[in-house]
Amino acid sequence: MVVNYPNGKQYTKPVVAKTQQNRQRKKTVFSNRGMSLEDDINDSNITYLIQERAVIHKKPTPIQIVNVDYPKRSAAVIKEAYFKQASTTDYNGVYKGFYLDFEAKETKNKQSFPLKNFHQHQITHMRQCLRHEGICFVILKFSSLNRLFLLEARHLLDFWDKQARGRKSIPLTELEKKAYEMYYSFSPRIPYLDVVDQIIEKFRM
Amino acid sequence: MVVNYPNGKQYTKPVVAKTQQNRQRKKTVFSNRGMSLEDDINDSNITYLIQERAVIHKKPTPIQIVNVDYPKRSAAVIKEAYFKQASTTDYNGVYKGFYLDFEAKETKNKQSFPLKNFHQHQITHMRQCLRHEGICFVILKFSSLNRLFLLEARHLLDFWDKQARGRKSIPLTELEKKAYEMYYSFSPRIPYLDVVDQIIEKFRM
Repeated sequence: MVVNYPNGKQYTKPVVAKTQQNRQRKKTVFSNRGMSLEDDINDSNITYLIQERAVIHKKPTPIQIVNVDYPKRSAAVIKEAYFKQASTTDYNGVYKGFYLDFEAKETKNKQSFPLKNFHQHQITHMRQCLRHEGICFVILKFSSLNRLFLLEARHLLDFWDKQARGRKSIPLTELEKKAYEMYYSFSPRIPYLDVVDQIIEKFRM
Repeated sequence: MVVNYPNGKQYTKPVVAKTQQNRQRKKTVFSNRGMSLEDDINDSNITYLIQERAVIHKKPTPIQIVNVDYPKRSAAVIKEAYFKQASTTDYNGVYKGFYLDFEAKETKNKQSFPLKNFHQHQITHMRQCLRHEGICFVILKFSSLNRLFLLEARHLLDFWDKQARGRKSIPLTELEKKAYEMYYSFSPRIPYLDVVDQIIEKFRM
């Protein structure tokens, strides 16, 4: 219901207040300004390592080295190399005896998460890990909304397999139902192991 | 018991036969001629992946990229990069729900395996993984003897910690007692998961 002024003129929020409100919102939204999702996850992994809670590392980017120069008295310099296709996801490690394996992706979209962010080799790898009882998931970030989700790989694979006959993206509304929403915190920045604890609980039941 | 000739002269194996025997032995020893331990393990990992027995990958070498050239219509070329210190071991993955983590090393020594083959960061990483109930080990190859051992990380850490007040290497005789000797096979070339099965059995008891 819109409440108008007594003179019948429609109420509009004052411009100044709106700006302040925006500033307020911006403050929250950009609290981790300049930090990519990858930075936040790497930082969280270091925190978890220091806290002795888990051992999770990002895998290095695979590179095909063609030419290396060994100058005297200094480190070897790679002079020619090419990026290679990875055959796995980016992150893996051990937590409470479980094998953890995940990938992290961002989108600027606001309504849905495009499946084209994933590559066939990542999907194949997650399917293989699930078969051997690994805990696999993806961390999805809507950067424009500053919302973070952890989606178990089994759900991602469902969406992936349904692609051929339908949606090429995962609607935000579906994520709100099937994924775990996560909130930035101080240490670790992305407390994803708290969600993994819930997944392990289900696993044990 | 040595059986002498009827004339009392001591029996010595005929020279020709000995050479043949050596050739025979050589045939076996160099059956995987030209293959490094790394090649053999990578090949074994592919076999295990195809057999759907486990998902184990070698981590790419970590590299610090400084300069990349993007020529038109072709792949990006890395023009300047440096090798970075790894923070983990080389191999990890999932098997029967367990987190597996290992390193592979070769020596030309015949009596013992020098501990200087290991780096502090690898030792630290193995200690961390053990704390979180990962299955950690090293695959050791005596290339001159063509003998292969799988040694659990807990034993390696023992030898490592005793270094300060003694041996800087692990005697072969100790490995014969504490490690699992492995033999080259056809597919996989190094059947290390058979040893892991034995470790898991102990783990469960």
